[in-house]
Amino acid sequence: MTNISIDAAFDSGNIEVLSIDGACAKLAIRPDNMSEFAQWFHFRIAGAAGEALTLKITNLNNSAYTGGWPDYDACVSEDREYWARASSNFDKDEDNGTLTISYTPASNLAWFAYFAPYSMERHHDLVAEAAACEGVEYLRLGATLDGQPIDCLTMGEGQAEVWLTARQHPGETQAEWWMEGALECLTDPTDPVALALRKRCRFHIVPNCNPDGSRRGHLRTNALGVNLNREWHEPTAQSSPEVLAIRNHMDETGVDFAIDVHGDEAIPAVFLAGYEGIPNLTEDHLEGYNSYQAILDRRTPDFQTKLGYPKAAPGKANLSMCTTQVAHRFKATAMTLEMPYKDLADAPEPEQGWSPERCKLLGRECMAALLEWLDRKG
Amino acid sequence: MTNISIDAAFDSGNIEVLSIDGACAKLAIRPDNMSEFAQWFHFRIAGAAGEALTLKITNLNNSAYTGGWPDYDACVSEDREYWARASSNFDKDEDNGTLTISYTPASNLAWFAYFAPYSMERHHDLVAEAAACEGVEYLRLGATLDGQPIDCLTMGEGQAEVWLTARQHPGETQAEWWMEGALECLTDPTDPVALALRKRCRFHIVPNCNPDGSRRGHLRTNALGVNLNREWHEPTAQSSPEVLAIRNHMDETGVDFAIDVHGDEAIPAVFLAGYEGIPNLTEDHLEGYNSYQAILDRRTPDFQTKLGYPKAAPGKANLSMCTTQVAHRFKATAMTLEMPYKDLADAPEPEQGWSPERCKLLGRECMAALLEWLDRKG
Amino acid sequence: MTNISIDAAFDSGNIEVLSIDGACAKLAIRPDNMSEFAQWFHFRIAGAAGEALTLKITNLNNSAYTGGWPDYDACVSEDREYWARASSNFDKDEDNGTLTISYTPASNLAWFAYFAPYSMERHHDLVAEAAACEGVEYLRLGATLDGQPIDCLTMGEGQAEVWLTARQHPGETQAEWWMEGALECLTDPTDPVALALRKRCRFHIVPNCNPDGSRRGHLRTNALGVNLNREWHEPTAQSSPEVLAIRNHMDETGVDFAIDVHGDEAIPAVFLAGYEGIPNLTEDHLEGYNSYQAILDRRTPDFQTKLGYPKAAPGKANLSMCTTQVAHRFKATAMTLEMPYKDLADAPEPEQGWSPERCKLLGRECMAALLEWLDRKG
Amino acid sequence: MTNISIDAAFDSGNIEVLSIDGACAKLAIRPDNMSEFAQWFHFRIAGAAGEALTLKITNLNNSAYTGGWPDYDACVSEDREYWARASSNFDKDEDNGTLTISYTPASNLAWFAYFAPYSMERHHDLVAEAAACEGVEYLRLGATLDGQPIDCLTMGEGQAEVWLTARQHPGETQAEWWMEGALECLTDPTDPVALALRKRCRFHIVPNCNPDGSRRGHLRTNALGVNLNREWHEPTAQSSPEVLAIRNHMDETGVDFAIDVHGDEAIPAVFLAGYEGIPNLTEDHLEGYNSYQAILDRRTPDFQTKLGYPKAAPGKANLSMCTTQVAHRFKATAMTLEMPYKDLADAPEPEQGWSPERCKLLGRECMAALLEWLDRKG
Ligand SMILES: [Ca+2]
Ligand SMILES: [Ca+2]
Ligand SMILES: [Ca+2]
Ligand SMILES: [Ca+2]
Repeated sequence: MTNISIDAAFDSGNIEVLSIDGACAKLAIRPDNMSEFAQWFHFRIAGAAGEALTLKITNLNNSAYTGGWPDYDACVSEDREYWARASSNFDKDEDNGTLTISYTPASNLAWFAYFAPYSMERHHDLVAEAAACEGVEYLRLGATLDGQPIDCLTMGEGQAEVWLTARQHPGETQAEWWMEGALECLTDPTDPVALALRKRCRFHIVPNCNPDGSRRGHLRTNALGVNLNREWHEPTAQSSPEVLAIRNHMDETGVDFAIDVHGDEAIPAVFLAGYEGIPNLTEDHLEGYNSYQAILDRRTPDFQTKLGYPKAAPGKANLSMCTTQVAHRFKATAMTLEMPYKDLADAPEPEQGWSPERCKLLGRECMAALLEWLDRKG
Repeated sequence: MTNISIDAAFDSGNIEVLSIDGACAKLAIRPDNMSEFAQWFHFRIAGAAGEALTLKITNLNNSAYTGGWPDYDACVSEDREYWARASSNFDKDEDNGTLTISYTPASNLAWFAYFAPYSMERHHDLVAEAAACEGVEYLRLGATLDGQPIDCLTMGEGQAEVWLTARQHPGETQAEWWMEGALECLTDPTDPVALALRKRCRFHIVPNCNPDGSRRGHLRTNALGVNLNREWHEPTAQSSPEVLAIRNHMDETGVDFAIDVHGDEAIPAVFLAGYEGIPNLTEDHLEGYNSYQAILDRRTPDFQTKLGYPKAAPGKANLSMCTTQVAHRFKATAMTLEMPYKDLADAPEPEQGWSPERCKLLGRECMAALLEWLDRKG
Repeated sequence: MTNISIDAAFDSGNIEVLSIDGACAKLAIRPDNMSEFAQWFHFRIAGAAGEALTLKITNLNNSAYTGGWPDYDACVSEDREYWARASSNFDKDEDNGTLTISYTPASNLAWFAYFAPYSMERHHDLVAEAAACEGVEYLRLGATLDGQPIDCLTMGEGQAEVWLTARQHPGETQAEWWMEGALECLTDPTDPVALALRKRCRFHIVPNCNPDGSRRGHLRTNALGVNLNREWHEPTAQSSPEVLAIRNHMDETGVDFAIDVHGDEAIPAVFLAGYEGIPNLTEDHLEGYNSYQAILDRRTPDFQTKLGYPKAAPGKANLSMCTTQVAHRFKATAMTLEMPYKDLADAPEPEQGWSPERCKLLGRECMAALLEWLDRKG
Repeated sequence: MTNISIDAAFDSGNIEVLSIDGACAKLAIRPDNMSEFAQWFHFRIAGAAGEALTLKITNLNNSAYTGGWPDYDACVSEDREYWARASSNFDKDEDNGTLTISYTPASNLAWFAYFAPYSMERHHDLVAEAAACEGVEYLRLGATLDGQPIDCLTMGEGQAEVWLTARQHPGETQAEWWMEGALECLTDPTDPVALALRKRCRFHIVPNCNPDGSRRGHLRTNALGVNLNREWHEPTAQSSPEVLAIRNHMDETGVDFAIDVHGDEAIPAVFLAGYEGIPNLTEDHLEGYNSYQAILDRRTPDFQTKLGYPKAAPGKANLSMCTTQVAHRFKATAMTLEMPYKDLADAPEPEQGWSPERCKLLGRECMAALLEWLDRKG
């Protein structure tokens, strides 16, 4: 057969082609600009209809999270809407760590990605649709280093200041799919959860905190290779204007409740991380987090509490992160929501694994859990 | 202006035109065939674009539930998809009880109904779509007196036998909208609630128990004027073949949990009714109902427990009803779910009031509450 | 296996079940009420997922058009939207003429029909959507014997009075699919054909001339078994109120150009029939028809002029038909458009044969041909 | 009021902000990279809900086509799907030529562009959808200077080699909307025009010949500022690899018929340009072009022949252009199709003017005209 061809020069594209031989290719992931983080990939294969592709992503022992590759199946789509999984296998001893993806496309074009991509075009569709809904305000918090706007949507007439932020780490596209689910709920004029929440809260929603990394196909950093979620203690206009703009607006509104949405490379589960290690933490303050976690755990089988990160020891929190900084700075109930790239260990679904559709359903469920949480507090 | 024209010769149509004068009409509701129940209306107005309609439905002191008319606004649609409310006013002293509906249509065709209709064509679409989903079986339980099939959908591989039935009372179209929401959830391959429920339950779903009454535009009875929800103690092939077919199949499967879905004419709220009055009721048995009610109450602001029916005294249950008969016959956790025609007293939404969209969201929420309920039991 | 079950008690349903044995059934077509016409069928099969169905429609030597059965494949749908063809075979010697349909459904519900049905619910959707468009007026021309309205849509500001009528013969559902295509064109604010036509014509459109026959599952007649297309010379309120209402309104508006849309049972092609045999026909008058036919023939491969009806001899036209009556009465360019039940002989497409989608595209093309025709006349 | 904000850092964005004062802004168009062509603009306004915007694009006397601004209204969208026109006025004496756009958005986000944009994301959706259709092959003809693929779709089993190319000039987005219409037609399994054409032709379709200029927000050139439609006589890998790749593949397939799709800045009409000036032109050769033009003119009111470019004198053709080169090189019937930015002078439609929807309808009509043209030749 003629060689397949491989492209990545599009929104969030990322791959280096080392060699192609028929339907087999040897590939590598380009690190984030000015950074060593490499994990996100997104590319298109042309000319392989009916051929058994063998795609080898090499040098992964140098990737950001080597624990992400075992038990991981790559995401694949032929229509750019429905994302399935392609059977994949990791061998740490082949070519300094190689993920071998096997897939036979029906069509002559197939897209592969670390997780279902969420393009900046779709981002603008999302923001435009929400901004046009009754009672929604739009605020441009600032601009990125590449000159893109930091979009913030505001809605609700209540007292509780609720902040939702996503995709500080741009390769964690799960986070913006989650946002799509949360925003569809909150702007639905017939959803009783939205009607009740908008009476009790004032929402501030940043669906994408890192547009530059998103468009550039980064995993974890902005245009200058800066990990935004390590900048919250002292963001700067020079290297983390995204965080500076968001935190400045938080200072104006105050924060009572915050979810910062992420994806985790290694852990096959949805979980929360809190702020156990912040200075002067009271039991009362932490209880807000613990009770929200319990409500969400009860409400949906997709959330669990067994797997997750170790808790920080008292006083040992890293205050450069969004969740800890916000919990500390505003005495807020704050949390990092992590969704997997892998399939759920508890409830495997081999066809799609963790999917955009699941992210969206979780987004709505997190809003409903917030309402239960507010009700509980009375 | 020329007189408007009024039609009702279509699926679930029901109106009698007493007189028309320009954009004003005097109307009456035709009772169910061979019965005195009259409450459901559904008709089309032609030729009134830009005209202020005054539609007077008279003789309502003879309707089935006179308590249904105060604080009620009629449903109206111009595109047959989006149903809003038309400002309405009840005067018990005018023409033996008159509801005056005021509305100015933008288009030359406008549909009015007691609640958003759910046609038999849409019913067949619903059943066909569900039957085509992986893992769903279809069972024709029997036929009505007009020769229509009693459609039953079965799915799930679990132990708990769950029965969902709707629209014994055909004018309570809320019930089939609820079914659409529940079925969309249960057949969604990505919904974690569905995935978990289908592992633990075997569902038996009858989205429309009374197709004849539905097509004929009845409120409460089948083709012979029989109230099916008073036949469960001894259904007959002659007058209640619908109930006979369903109850016979229940006898084959057994029942652990059952929801029978209804609409209530007078009470402006969503609520449950249980089986407090059945013979030999144990505390344990009733606890299943009470705990489900508490879970649902916690999960969604659209459900509440303040408004509802008085509970039957011990031993005084009417066993001719679905819920009591099923609770008694199978020692099942059974319940009647009632949704309003009126707007919710607690959370009024003047534009649409209680709506098909709300019914569907509640259908999904009732399924999620069932999962919580099963989890709680361990 | 258990026996399949068969239902037809729905909009336009028509079948008699003689016997069922597993996945095989012996069937017959119920004639139109008070009439001997029998040809239309429409029924649902339940419980045959994965089973090879053998459906035998018998007694077809007594059907209205025996020439319709050779080379005909029955229409089948499992989702009620996409209609494919099921391999069928006619044996005139089996059980007085039997069409044997062979099909293995994937789902437990499958619908079969003579042609893709067009329900009265869809009719109301069509009329409501058109009536809501800017510049469209709705007129209720009268009522049928079953009390259904005769719906007429009016649009355009031009001089030429154009009448489009369909489905006098209710089992010729092709005609209303054609109407859907024509109406989508004419109400499209961006279609240049519509913009130009609406400036030059006044359209009078009756998408369904025979709602009673449609809902009852008739082939050719109204509620009283009357063939409407033999009533145009003297329609009566008693037996053909549909034609009376339409012709009366034609008398008010006049008619310059008219298409009456039909289906033909035997001929595997799309063709026109004109008015060659009307009294006092001039060459000039007939030229209008001939030139329209030539334009349409040139514009679309789906139309042809080789197959068709024999032309009436001079003076021998049957003036009881719409086309001849209208041509004669108004000196109009009038025509009967016939679409097939069978596949096109010229361009066979085994998967779908002649289809609703093709009907709709033809509807738009007939409008574009009308514009060319008007342009030609200058 | 607070100042509005203005962004253009997205796919095909192009604007320079000179100053902002409340709801008024002074703007300029950035020229194509390494080029002086400036005409395309595309930007987003935030924070102007309910405010009367006054947007002044200055310095237009230096733009590529100053004749484009009189009688031109800017395109605007709030939902990024429906593009309307915003009342605009050109004053050649204000700030070296200023277009003043007046518009009051309902929402806080509004997009403005020279014509409705067609993003590279939508391009990939278009190509993926077509490539997945039965009988469609995908060919990657080469890569651009920015590393994007030149996508080519091939379909049909016939003898006539038909080439369709669009968007050599990236700011002429009309051309890719036209392609969407043509491709929807050609891949529609029910469209008789497609069925017939695919039997008689072999189609080679390049929906976007200049992806780099498209993504960069250029009017007329590629990444290096090269006007591709002046490179067809001797394209090079260094400066016009797009043309080289396409022409090389043309050399392999041969060309019988070709349409190269464009937009024209000044002329308020749709028209064709041919190859009158090529060397050794025969009457026979030119007749192919003339007859196609006549067919298209007859088929659709959106096409006309009064307005257009002057014809080249015999032997004076510029062979660096696609149409002339292809006509000359392959003795093909070739043509440049031009669509307007302005509204049609003949059939003004103030709400949308010439629109994406019109482009798509024209795409289908050009395919139907091709079939008529082939039929005529027999
Ligand atoms: Ca993370
Ligand atoms: Ca009830
Ligand atoms: Ca006929
Ligand atoms: Ca051009």
